Amino acid sequence: MEFKAINIADFLYGTVEGDENISVSNVSRIEEGKPGTLAFLANPKYEKFLYETEASIVLVSRNFVPERPVSCTLIRVDDPYQSIASLLEMYQQAKMQKSGIEQPSYIDSSATIGDGIYVGAFAYVGAKAIVGKQAKIYPQVFIGSNVKIGSNTIIYAGAKIYDDTVIGDNCIIHAGVVIGSDGFGFAPTEDGSYKKVPQVGNVIIEDDVEIGANTTIDCSTMGSTIIRKGAKLDNLIQVAHNCEVGENTVMAALTGIAGSTKVGKNCMFAGQVGIAGHITIGDGVKIGAMAGVSNSIKAGKTVLGAPAMDHDRALKTYVVYRRLPEMRDQLIELQKEIKELKSKLNEE
Amino acid sequence: MEFKAINIADFLYGTVEGDENISVSNVSRIEEGKPGTLAFLANPKYEKFLYETEASIVLVSRNFVPERPVSCTLIRVDDPYQSIASLLEMYQQAKMQKSGIEQPSYIDSSATIGDGIYVGAFAYVGAKAIVGKQAKIYPQVFIGSNVKIGSNTIIYAGAKIYDDTVIGDNCIIHAGVVIGSDGFGFAPTEDGSYKKVPQVGNVIIEDDVEIGANTTIDCSTMGSTIIRKGAKLDNLIQVAHNCEVGENTVMAALTGIAGSTKVGKNCMFAGQVGIAGHITIGDGVKIGAMAGVSNSIKAGKTVLGAPAMDHDRALKTYVVYRRLPEMRDQLIELQKEIKELKSKLNEE
Amino acid sequence: MEFKAINIADFLYGTVEGDENISVSNVSRIEEGKPGTLAFLANPKYEKFLYETEASIVLVSRNFVPERPVSCTLIRVDDPYQSIASLLEMYQQAKMQKSGIEQPSYIDSSATIGDGIYVGAFAYVGAKAIVGKQAKIYPQVFIGSNVKIGSNTIIYAGAKIYDDTVIGDNCIIHAGVVIGSDGFGFAPTEDGSYKKVPQVGNVIIEDDVEIGANTTIDCSTMGSTIIRKGAKLDNLIQVAHNCEVGENTVMAALTGIAGSTKVGKNCMFAGQVGIAGHITIGDGVKIGAMAGVSNSIKAGKTVLGAPAMDHDRALKTYVVYRRLPEMRDQLIELQKEIKELKSKLNEE
Repeated sequence: MEFKAINIADFLYGTVEGDENISVSNVSRIEEGKPGTLAFLANPKYEKFLYETEASIVLVSRNFVPERPVSCTLIRVDDPYQSIASLLEMYQQAKMQKSGIEQPSYIDSSATIGDGIYVGAFAYVGAKAIVGKQAKIYPQVFIGSNVKIGSNTIIYAGAKIYDDTVIGDNCIIHAGVVIGSDGFGFAPTEDGSYKKVPQVGNVIIEDDVEIGANTTIDCSTMGSTIIRKGAKLDNLIQVAHNCEVGENTVMAALTGIAGSTKVGKNCMFAGQVGIAGHITIGDGVKIGAMAGVSNSIKAGKTVLGAPAMDHDRALKTYVVYRRLPEMRDQLIELQKEIKELKSKLNEE
Repeated sequence: MEFKAINIADFLYGTVEGDENISVSNVSRIEEGKPGTLAFLANPKYEKFLYETEASIVLVSRNFVPERPVSCTLIRVDDPYQSIASLLEMYQQAKMQKSGIEQPSYIDSSATIGDGIYVGAFAYVGAKAIVGKQAKIYPQVFIGSNVKIGSNTIIYAGAKIYDDTVIGDNCIIHAGVVIGSDGFGFAPTEDGSYKKVPQVGNVIIEDDVEIGANTTIDCSTMGSTIIRKGAKLDNLIQVAHNCEVGENTVMAALTGIAGSTKVGKNCMFAGQVGIAGHITIGDGVKIGAMAGVSNSIKAGKTVLGAPAMDHDRALKTYVVYRRLPEMRDQLIELQKEIKELKSKLNEE
Repeated sequence: MEFKAINIADFLYGTVEGDENISVSNVSRIEEGKPGTLAFLANPKYEKFLYETEASIVLVSRNFVPERPVSCTLIRVDDPYQSIASLLEMYQQAKMQKSGIEQPSYIDSSATIGDGIYVGAFAYVGAKAIVGKQAKIYPQVFIGSNVKIGSNTIIYAGAKIYDDTVIGDNCIIHAGVVIGSDGFGFAPTEDGSYKKVPQVGNVIIEDDVEIGANTTIDCSTMGSTIIRKGAKLDNLIQVAHNCEVGENTVMAALTGIAGSTKVGKNCMFAGQVGIAGHITIGDGVKIGAMAGVSNSIKAGKTVLGAPAMDHDRALKTYVVYRRLPEMRDQLIELQKEIKELKSKLNEE
């Protein structure tokens, strides 16, 4: 498919600066731009590539002022990042139109399947499960008994959804995700062994949630582990039993949240964060990469480090931490000087 | 299924305080209790919810003394946490009675399958594999050649068991677990590339072990990687080749154990712990979340932090660490004062 | 299969010291050696086991001088670790000769399959996919549309390869690996929710790469996420979108690399390392376990800790960090002494 600059600008409510009739058939990164592709410039750090890119068209911000002459065609838009997103979405939707039921697949006779659904080969849909219309269930997906899956939700190859899980509309569950596995609950016994505490709750995932590859979300001991509307979880994240993750909260890869913790809405967690159990993270909290959070955090705070500290405090502490060897030397020097002062004073 | 307070008390060897004939059909958390459900109170932090819960019945400790009047029916037991576990276990066993062999599944003609087994659709049982009686092999599970799986063991959807693995009785292996993948062993060559060291050992998992979703356990280079009886591993844990994890040791999510390390029995590791290779962790060792352990630890110790330190020492160090900016200011202040003292002394 | 010492020595260009005709049928670790097995001694730490092992044959270095008498037969070779690797490789190749197409499997009519291939039951090969000769596709593997897989590559059970991925020759992809899942890219909108940025790029994995169990590699937003020739990734690693991992770079388990970061060749990362996005790690960089790297690192450097510091600097800093409680006491002591000095001085 080829698109002209003028048509792309129309679609994006943008304006063309350069050749309106130049056409592109693919996208590229600005630093790797090739003729016939469209790139975008959102991060000012990448501006230098604008002057040397071979991309035919580059999306830029409406108020962007180039410092040097530009040889490609520019399309000016309100927000280049959102515009490229809209373009790519259109591109991807055109591309991904799977439907129908491949064989062999296993759909229990008591399950209910919506119109326009795709079920890949070797997918399993358990007893009394309900899958909404236009949903896409890729090959080798497992959907347990009594699971409910909303409309337009995509479940990629090999994701495993345990019994009683509820997933909303327009969700994307990536390959290898496990939802509803038993929470990690054991009661110690007198001989040092552990007795399993059965986990009879479930997981509820609201609408518009995306869950990254191989992430695991345990079911609640009783009641529900809940991922609220619009939350986005990256790959290899662990959400333990009884947790709640708030609306529009995003978490990067390899983060772990221990049991019964409530995370507010609009939070941002960087990668490899660890959150203790039974605490509360307020709305809008930002947590830096590898931070270790063992206490509740109030709404709006930004914390860093392990143990986690307030952002400004953490930066100050890092500065001193990095100077510890000098600090020790200064301390030793002071000890010497005081000794000298003392003996001097005693001499007098 | 409905149960009366008096019948539940009988089952648990407990005593009723309140309406013996009130009945429940489900369980709930005390803070979310609804009429017709049973809750429990084990952690004193949750006592406040006892006075406002709508749960019909609450399990409490035999010696618990309420501070305010209670409107629900109480059942007094020795250990509310263990009691709820027993109840839930009964509930879950009643619920989960899958058996039979779903089609299509693949069971090699040389494999041996016990009585009363469940094999889900798209499960694969390789050559000469032996699966014990009453075992449950969920859909899309892969069981390689020569694998042995004990009686009553449950392997959830999509777990992958490589050739030659041995799994005991009464184990629970969650979805997405990989057991027996190649250890990470490579010999450097002169040109900077690596030559794979074939990993010809296996993994042995003893009885009563539970392995959480998407956890990976590599096979030994030669000999066996071993998970001892009663050990419980949470989700997304990495156990490298040649390791041994002792009896009744529990580990929380995202923990990694490097190659050839021996972990003793009755240890407790919190989440995201890292353990170096070729070391020994003694019996009963406790390791705090995100600790980085690079040296062997003696039995009975508790360590925290990265690099890991003795528990008391670590707490003291954290206190000072958090005051580093003030400490630097104090040091600078001292430097000034000494300078003044010196000049004063010289003046005299 | 039994092998005599003299034949093994011939195969390895080694020399026998002891009984040339003693034979072995299996391998063992030197510390667990049993009669009829072959062990090896590469790490000097294990020398003590040489004098007590029951292994019949032990591979040692050509210039190794035993400190005490040895009862087993020795085979002297240039590099015992490489020699055992060669032996085990031969052993494993003899063992693993699967081929043919098991049923039921799903191979799209537009896919192309090479000679001598193995396709396990419940494996899925999508439209226009190309799988090279002698490749082994284990049960329940998912191969999306337009995927290319080279010759002799092994993809273990249940690995999931998204559309458009390219994998080279002689690669090993372990069970549960996910390659090509969507990068974690979302544009914030005014109401606090996020709009997905479609990820239309792919993943390219060059020849001779090994990827450990349950590791995830996201596709590029546009263009390619690239794993270069000979790289070795352990289990449960996250490689985000747009990253590049250089030739012969090795990474241990639970490491995470954020988006758009370039890692050079011949690097070594220990476990649970975290690397920020949009930075460059030079060739030959070594990174210690659990290090947190937020800035680019020049070629050849070794860094430790979180935040990561130069190796020598980090070790010095650790020493002081561990003495922080004493340092505070010394500081308090100095404050006291100065106070005394001052008052003494004022008295005079």
